[in-house]
Amino acid sequence: MQAHLDVAIGQYDGTVAEAMGYASRGGKRLRALFVMEGARLHGIAPDHAVWPATAIEALHAYSLVHDDLPCMDDDDERRGMPTVHRRWDEATAVLAGDALQTLAFELVADPRGHPDGAVRADLGLSLARAAGAGGMVRGQALDIAAETAPTPLTLEQITDLQAGKTGALITWSACAGPLMARADQKPLKTYGDCIGLAFQIADDVLDVTGDPEKTGKAVGKDAAAGKATFVSLLGLDAAKRRAADLVTEACDALAVYADAADSLRHAARFVIARDS
Amino acid sequence: MQAHLDVAIGQYDGTVAEAMGYASRGGKRLRALFVMEGARLHGIAPDHAVWPATAIEALHAYSLVHDDLPCMDDDDERRGMPTVHRRWDEATAVLAGDALQTLAFELVADPRGHPDGAVRADLGLSLARAAGAGGMVRGQALDIAAETAPTPLTLEQITDLQAGKTGALITWSACAGPLMARADQKPLKTYGDCIGLAFQIADDVLDVTGDPEKTGKAVGKDAAAGKATFVSLLGLDAAKRRAADLVTEACDALAVYADAADSLRHAARFVIARDS
Repeated sequence: MQAHLDVAIGQYDGTVAEAMGYASRGGKRLRALFVMEGARLHGIAPDHAVWPATAIEALHAYSLVHDDLPCMDDDDERRGMPTVHRRWDEATAVLAGDALQTLAFELVADPRGHPDGAVRADLGLSLARAAGAGGMVRGQALDIAAETAPTPLTLEQITDLQAGKTGALITWSACAGPLMARADQKPLKTYGDCIGLAFQIADDVLDVTGDPEKTGKAVGKDAAAGKATFVSLLGLDAAKRRAADLVTEACDALAVYADAADSLRHAARFVIARDS
Repeated sequence: MQAHLDVAIGQYDGTVAEAMGYASRGGKRLRALFVMEGARLHGIAPDHAVWPATAIEALHAYSLVHDDLPCMDDDDERRGMPTVHRRWDEATAVLAGDALQTLAFELVADPRGHPDGAVRADLGLSLARAAGAGGMVRGQALDIAAETAPTPLTLEQITDLQAGKTGALITWSACAGPLMARADQKPLKTYGDCIGLAFQIADDVLDVTGDPEKTGKAVGKDAAAGKATFVSLLGLDAAKRRAADLVTEACDALAVYADAADSLRHAARFVIARDS
């Protein structure tokens, strides 16, 4: 997948392409894993699945570059390295993010991917719906608005926000396999929805308990900003329990795949056990 | 097309959706016209063509919102109205631009558009190639870099820059019709390439001779910034002649369509005759 992304970005030259490569290196590659595993469960060849798997990592990288901008979360570091606008400048960060988003749609539509054009179009359509003003961008907008809201968000509001900000792309990743096979997406949709929420709760837990050396970001940042999180709303222990329950629910949804889905069960447990 | 765009944005709510609607109102709709006319010449139903026509206007609107940002061209006005980051704020402008780009890929992939999924996938693929790090974003990056370059750009460099910044999307618009019909794209590609360049030369001419009441932007901005333009490199009269020659070349390329392409010939002449 990394090699595939390097080749895709390697088509281009100049500072923006360099920043695209920089921004898309590292990370946990969970979304790509969900695409590849979901595809495997439905008999989709890895050669076909790697295109949407690479696309979702490009799209994820775009979202991080723009989220880090001074006018958004204003972060100086990401994965222990300077953010793109700190390493280069804001114009480069805006453009590298823009082009990473474009690249994602280039990759899902590439005829070297799934042989059925209608499948490639549907991958693009569903990715756009997950990423756009009704999905990820909506979640990010709610997050930005929350920073200046007179009262902290409620549990319902923060769940809604996260379903957009992180949940929509994770669910898309899980569903890409059955989409490519024209099979029922429901089990993997439930898995993705649960994992997306568990992932964010785990992030909030790590913000309190994490080791900045490992997470690559400052600890206690959300609490210091007076931001409502799953931990501030539920308490640390109840937040951990909620995440664990979601992981159980996610694994249960995979019953239809029996043992074949063990790697997805493993990934689900990793989401709440990780230290970065 | 406007109604179609309003419906597409109307799926969403909140400030970002409001800013998306604001940013995509007005304008000359030349790109949509190229899509619709190129489609008509190839027997593509308007009901199918309106999807890529709407998509290209959403994508164009995204590019304007991000180009206007303080870290890019830092413009306060667009089409005589405050730019998105002035009317709202930078975060809203980044997100509205992001979501307008996403919307473009949602629209080309929508199954209510062209019935052949492979065509929809190819519209997405070609749009991404035109818009991304090898096309429009590359042109914008070259434009930003030129601002701090020790010497002004040469004619060759500025032609290359504009082929990306404005040319790539105009050529895509012209080619979308034959692409949908699986017909030869060459005549309309030549038309688009010539019109894209003529359009930019005309913009540079308007920067010198235009009426700010009509163009909706300050006159002499490029000259004041010491920026190389087609006018600064060729002189006003030679720049006008070059644009006129390109329009002739564009119209000649339409010979294969005979009288049926008269509306595209009219549009070509409008590109250099316009006062805004």
